[in-house]
Amino acid sequence: MRYELYYWTGAQGRGEFIRLALEDVAADYIDVARKRGDNAMMPFLRGKQAGALPFAPPFLKAGRMVIAQTATILAYLGPRLGLVPGGLSAEIYAQQLQATIADIVFEVHDTHHPISASLYYEQQRSAARKRSQAFREERIPKYLDYFESVLARGNGRQALSRHSYVDLSLFQLISGLDYAFPNTMRRMQRQIPRLRALAERIAERPNIAAYLASPRRIPFNEDGIFRRYPELDPVR
Amino acid sequence: MRYELYYWTGAQGRGEFIRLALEDVAADYIDVARKRGDNAMMPFLRGKQAGALPFAPPFLKAGRMVIAQTATILAYLGPRLGLVPGGLSAEIYAQQLQATIADIVFEVHDTHHPISASLYYEQQRSAARKRSQAFREERIPKYLDYFESVLARGNGRQALSRHSYVDLSLFQLISGLDYAFPNTMRRMQRQIPRLRALAERIAERPNIAAYLASPRRIPFNEDGIFRRYPELDPVR
Repeated sequence: MRYELYYWTGAQGRGEFIRLALEDVAADYIDVARKRGDNAMMPFLRGKQAGALPFAPPFLKAGRMVIAQTATILAYLGPRLGLVPGGLSAEIYAQQLQATIADIVFEVHDTHHPISASLYYEQQRSAARKRSQAFREERIPKYLDYFESVLARGNGRQALSRHSYVDLSLFQLISGLDYAFPNTMRRMQRQIPRLRALAERIAERPNIAAYLASPRRIPFNEDGIFRRYPELDPVR
Repeated sequence: MRYELYYWTGAQGRGEFIRLALEDVAADYIDVARKRGDNAMMPFLRGKQAGALPFAPPFLKAGRMVIAQTATILAYLGPRLGLVPGGLSAEIYAQQLQATIADIVFEVHDTHHPISASLYYEQQRSAARKRSQAFREERIPKYLDYFESVLARGNGRQALSRHSYVDLSLFQLISGLDYAFPNTMRRMQRQIPRLRALAERIAERPNIAAYLASPRRIPFNEDGIFRRYPELDPVR
């Protein structure tokens, strides 16, 4: 099946978690908006198609199904792309971990938009500074300690008993945090040896390495979820 | 099977979405912390049990499985409690809708805690006022218009082709918004006829009505997700 991915052009955003899964297994897919423009998403968002209604991008068209929400798309794709171990218990655990990744991604977004997504960053800079401080000091350690424990309880190298979409998403999370909070992540380096090793192994997977070196990988930038605003991550 | 639900005592919180599903079908379950205290959750959160590691409550013990994240717990329970229509496409749509409910619940929490969950409300009141204004004016209408459209595309009365855990969660969402943002919700009354009718029907389901009248239903309060702080919802 040829999958159709719909996501805003111009930033990695939440769409990137889906792209990494599709790229890792060299799935047949089209990144529709990057081919035809963001307007290609509008009929779906306005409810012009039958079936499921997306609230927002990313969404995936898989045959006649339309699936939105990053974690839900991956719950669907996982078994179909061979990116989750077999069995109910592994599938459910993968979904739980992906939902937790969605939570920290939400919090990352709110470091630069703590008041409203429809105001500019510059209009909420003071609250952004405060929220980012709490995020750096409390939330990054809490989430990364958690994911480090998840790896330790697995086989030490992967979240589940074998490679999965969760590992790909953890790679993206670490990459994004490295981009947005380089000083904090440098200080945390020794506390997350398993996550670091995982991120390196993922970056070296042939299909992922090829993808990251290709123009299909949009560079991190200040239109995405992970943004580098130096005042939100001071050197100390 | 006797399910064990683990959630903080003292507030409805995210645990309430699970309780409503279990209560609606009169499932056999124990609300563990309310029986044995919040400490009963600690061994799980500290990783003392085998298998899946929860990041935070709520989590559910189902036989040997431990499942965390509200939307994941409901994805698991849905088919087992008969609370989702059969078939992949309905299950996936239910998961997507529940993930979207999780998103607005996250945003509701951040109206009173826009800077940090570990500071008191009083320490972030000024940012809370600003975030709440954006939430009332932009986000409530956007989400509720969306769910109203979801109902319109279903059979007009339910999110899916028949009663599901998504309907129970929409009831909880509307109830919580009515509690926390009564003035805003009164002004929106006419824009959400289907959601209103759905919420009324759910409240009248015999098992739900009995639950809501029982001491098992913790009243809304200012320790939960939905909090009534009058300055966050002015009369205008």
